Amino acid sequence: MNGEELLDFAKSIFPFNRSITGDGLRRTLEAIRGVLPELEIRAVPSGTQCFDWIVPDEWSVNEAYVIDPHGNRVIDFAANNLHLVNYSDGFVGDVSLDELQAHLHSLPDQPTAIPYVTSYYSNAWGFCISENERRKLVEGNYRVVIDSRKFPGELNFGEILIPGELNEEIFLTTYVCHPSMANNEVSGPTVLAHLGKWLSNRNNRFSYRIVFAPETIGAIAYLSKNFTHLQKHVKAAFNLTCIGDERTYSYISTRSENTLSDRVVRHVANQLPGDCRRFSFQDRGSDERQYGSPLVNLPMVTLCRTRFYDYPEYHTSLDDFSVVTAEGLKGGFNFASQCVQTLEINKTYVAQFPCEPQLGRHGLYPLTGGRPTGGDTNLMLDVLAYSDGDADLLEIAEILSCPLDHVAKAANTLANANLLRHLDN
Amino acid sequence: MNGEELLDFAKSIFPFNRSITGDGLRRTLEAIRGVLPELEIRAVPSGTQCFDWIVPDEWSVNEAYVIDPHGNRVIDFAANNLHLVNYSDGFVGDVSLDELQAHLHSLPDQPTAIPYVTSYYSNAWGFCISENERRKLVEGNYRVVIDSRKFPGELNFGEILIPGELNEEIFLTTYVCHPSMANNEVSGPTVLAHLGKWLSNRNNRFSYRIVFAPETIGAIAYLSKNFTHLQKHVKAAFNLTCIGDERTYSYISTRSENTLSDRVVRHVANQLPGDCRRFSFQDRGSDERQYGSPLVNLPMVTLCRTRFYDYPEYHTSLDDFSVVTAEGLKGGFNFASQCVQTLEINKTYVAQFPCEPQLGRHGLYPLTGGRPTGGDTNLMLDVLAYSDGDADLLEIAEILSCPLDHVAKAANTLANANLLRHLDN
Amino acid sequence: MNGEELLDFAKSIFPFNRSITGDGLRRTLEAIRGVLPELEIRAVPSGTQCFDWIVPDEWSVNEAYVIDPHGNRVIDFAANNLHLVNYSDGFVGDVSLDELQAHLHSLPDQPTAIPYVTSYYSNAWGFCISENERRKLVEGNYRVVIDSRKFPGELNFGEILIPGELNEEIFLTTYVCHPSMANNEVSGPTVLAHLGKWLSNRNNRFSYRIVFAPETIGAIAYLSKNFTHLQKHVKAAFNLTCIGDERTYSYISTRSENTLSDRVVRHVANQLPGDCRRFSFQDRGSDERQYGSPLVNLPMVTLCRTRFYDYPEYHTSLDDFSVVTAEGLKGGFNFASQCVQTLEINKTYVAQFPCEPQLGRHGLYPLTGGRPTGGDTNLMLDVLAYSDGDADLLEIAEILSCPLDHVAKAANTLANANLLRHLDN
Repeated sequence: MNGEELLDFAKSIFPFNRSITGDGLRRTLEAIRGVLPELEIRAVPSGTQCFDWIVPDEWSVNEAYVIDPHGNRVIDFAANNLHLVNYSDGFVGDVSLDELQAHLHSLPDQPTAIPYVTSYYSNAWGFCISENERRKLVEGNYRVVIDSRKFPGELNFGEILIPGELNEEIFLTTYVCHPSMANNEVSGPTVLAHLGKWLSNRNNRFSYRIVFAPETIGAIAYLSKNFTHLQKHVKAAFNLTCIGDERTYSYISTRSENTLSDRVVRHVANQLPGDCRRFSFQDRGSDERQYGSPLVNLPMVTLCRTRFYDYPEYHTSLDDFSVVTAEGLKGGFNFASQCVQTLEINKTYVAQFPCEPQLGRHGLYPLTGGRPTGGDTNLMLDVLAYSDGDADLLEIAEILSCPLDHVAKAANTLANANLLRHLDN
Repeated sequence: MNGEELLDFAKSIFPFNRSITGDGLRRTLEAIRGVLPELEIRAVPSGTQCFDWIVPDEWSVNEAYVIDPHGNRVIDFAANNLHLVNYSDGFVGDVSLDELQAHLHSLPDQPTAIPYVTSYYSNAWGFCISENERRKLVEGNYRVVIDSRKFPGELNFGEILIPGELNEEIFLTTYVCHPSMANNEVSGPTVLAHLGKWLSNRNNRFSYRIVFAPETIGAIAYLSKNFTHLQKHVKAAFNLTCIGDERTYSYISTRSENTLSDRVVRHVANQLPGDCRRFSFQDRGSDERQYGSPLVNLPMVTLCRTRFYDYPEYHTSLDDFSVVTAEGLKGGFNFASQCVQTLEINKTYVAQFPCEPQLGRHGLYPLTGGRPTGGDTNLMLDVLAYSDGDADLLEIAEILSCPLDHVAKAANTLANANLLRHLDN
Repeated sequence: MNGEELLDFAKSIFPFNRSITGDGLRRTLEAIRGVLPELEIRAVPSGTQCFDWIVPDEWSVNEAYVIDPHGNRVIDFAANNLHLVNYSDGFVGDVSLDELQAHLHSLPDQPTAIPYVTSYYSNAWGFCISENERRKLVEGNYRVVIDSRKFPGELNFGEILIPGELNEEIFLTTYVCHPSMANNEVSGPTVLAHLGKWLSNRNNRFSYRIVFAPETIGAIAYLSKNFTHLQKHVKAAFNLTCIGDERTYSYISTRSENTLSDRVVRHVANQLPGDCRRFSFQDRGSDERQYGSPLVNLPMVTLCRTRFYDYPEYHTSLDDFSVVTAEGLKGGFNFASQCVQTLEINKTYVAQFPCEPQLGRHGLYPLTGGRPTGGDTNLMLDVLAYSDGDADLLEIAEILSCPLDHVAKAANTLANANLLRHLDN
């Protein structure tokens, strides 16, 4: 995968005013459809009950700004959509500095950063500015204009199924509700859209279901409509987020730490070009919260470069393209695609008859013996010795401390010689 | 619990000439009934077969002493009931020093201590004295008077059931057969009597069955009469012994080390104000020997301050109120009562619907989001995330490295909001 | 066992020209029958299909040598049967040094050693010489005479069943196809033949089935004829190889590392007079390859002194009686016989009634109590406390960190007193 292509896409969707509903969300889904033409964009009406939640009214912003006593536009949503609290109520009026301060959010410890603040489920208006700008505000009257509205509309998400040989599905998701922040979260949609494209151009063993939805309410709405199907068909699941920086790799395990997804990511983590930090389900914070909740319990692992919470620019205007790079996105793509490739080649085999085969008769053994032969022959014998129909190749690779692709190649050679039989998963 | 109150009680029962039968045992049970008026004192006749054992004849002592060649009463049961071998046969006669020596017990390594010696199941007479006193004995004839007798009578134990909401029982026991020694064993009856009083004044979830019996034969007699009931109803069990000193805390695990009792004591041990030593079932030595035997297999953990065998005064006259203190007894009471409280709040819950609830709609979440919230909200989300109907709160507390009472408080809040449902245990 | 007796036997069979078929194999089996008169020598005809393998034609050698340009017999099978590639085709002719070199095998890193080379399943002729001798060969014409032939005959193995009280069998094997090398492999047949003799003179609980077969093809041929019986009856299995040197002890675990054979060898390994190296099934290389293959899956552990591959003389003429000694063979015999004795005494018991027995009533307890008694009484109480009908004595010995024979003695005392009941295995 070309990192520059990923970066170009990320930059193209960066400016949209995304939220859990609205035009910015839809524009993002349409941009993803530019990469994945088969993507279906779905809608859930405002007011729909989804488990414990109710889909909120849609939110739309025309303009939002603050003019200071000298007539300067000191805060302007047009300059950065983080300036307006996400889901802010509309408001027009003149307020004193004191009144204004009660509606401002800034970060004293990060004085140059505009924080990201949301208010989805309450009625309030507010702005976010950097601490440095806030300190410059003078006494006097401020003109506040927030031309936003909330109205019965819909919540949207995008979904695509890439069919494979098997009905069993690998479920992949990310979220598309965060406004102009690069790692969290244009990196996830960027990497996942292109992973979907890559999957569409391959012959896959598993079917791949990919969902782009707003975080939390979008995941919950999606789950409430597809619960039974997912319970029945999903064999492994990955959530992609904060997957575009170059700092490290990381992943969040499932609650049991023992699902196929966990085993896959642990194997891949050992072969990444950099460090990979393992987190427990206690360290969750993205949509694995919903997909891994007790009554849902899908085997979902979250894949990150640097995990949300763990980088200082998180949820501020500093999360920009100094954090996310072509190289970082490419690494994130490779992390995810290696998980997919691991799943694809992780078959289960069983020996065809008792005892070792006579490899020589099958053209697989040096004909003059007496010394250990090493190399491919030994690996083939090891794969045969552990292929009891129960252990999958991933388990055998872990036992042998051998990369899965080597093990899979040996197994494939043996299967072609009718010395191993592939069991349907 | 007031430590002085415990100490006063301990001192009041200290002097009784306790044995596995007899008046000293009955007086002790009556003293406990002073604390627990509902205690029922039961009797098993001498000669009753209890599994492999037969309840022995009752033992009664009127007086016992030795007069030296100079006419001095050099050993006198009236001065300390440890002087007479417990269950000594009666004997009256004149013996030489050599003959007397064959009937004396002392401890050369602890020259000031009178040892505690028993002879329940053999016919013999004997005295125990300190090594220092023994060395002073002069040649000549000694007058020995042991006015004791064994006769068909009964073995007694005390039992009380403190009913709770549930029929499941927590079984608590200690032993009441040791004569004048403070830690082993007036501390156990003292702490358990007052724990019973404390339980009687609470509304409990579990029912509590408390038994005060002579060690070994009493436990076996009790078990032989109540085997089926205990097998059916007991959910956790604790044996209290050597629980009145200030030196350390300790406990003896069950054979499997994995019962509810083990899990409870491990959690409590981590929160005690001092060190707590964990022993295996191999280190057993009290009535967990019977309750934990293979065909009984009750989940019994023994709770101690300093374990029997592990303090130098053990089974001697040095085990007095320089070892057992108000502070030590209070700590023992707290150890046991914290095990009880842990059991009481250790419920199992299950989520009410898939995915996280919308905490804000239930008044349980800050309405303006965007940053991790920490504190109570995070703990509630963690408790929800692990409440799969299988893990109890104790397991969740261990996963979260969080005290159980915090976890239980969060679970209770969630249950009151109908976000968790309590499963019957 | 007398080490010199073992050494004498080893030396007596050392010179035979063993291979996977032929007279050398049969002479070896007949020599073993000298130790084990009940041994049955069986035959499988050439051409018989055994799972994936076909029993090859028999191989017979009359003479084989090379004469150099000066008329010197520079290589002669009569001097050392390793000189001829095992299963070499016949050949008579004059060849140049260059042509000859293409048919020679030597070891540049071990210039004094004649290597052991086989060519069972291909058509080729060849000689093995030391690197030093090879370097002396001069230019010119060489006379090569290999008077060998391959013809439809049979493959032989020896089998004996030593019946015990139980139908359950312990399976013991080694291989008899290696020519004149001492550790690999006259040590295995030597030790196993004498182990069989020792077993024949004992009353055993288990039945012992002992098989002497050519490696790989012999094991496979044997397994193909006895598969169902072995699957049903074998409770533990040991393969003996390289078991006559003094350097160390070692064993190769089964795939699961958790069978009775594994548990037995781990216990014995801790009590050997020297170090014992534990290998995983990944380090296999002898007939455990066949017996432990997935669809066979017998619980076979391989016992060695120094494992094949791990000593420099392996598979060369240096593997002689400077490597294998009387002391080394005796240690190997003890290793194997201790595994047998461990199996024999590893029974499973269950308590006869709830609670501890009254040991005193059964003559098993000091009658005057009050202090821990230690020693045999404590061990008996421990054995009682863990004999739940599930744990066998080996498991109890591991829990108690106590040699199995002590535990078994205590259990036996208790069983004789009707305090434990032996469960049929």
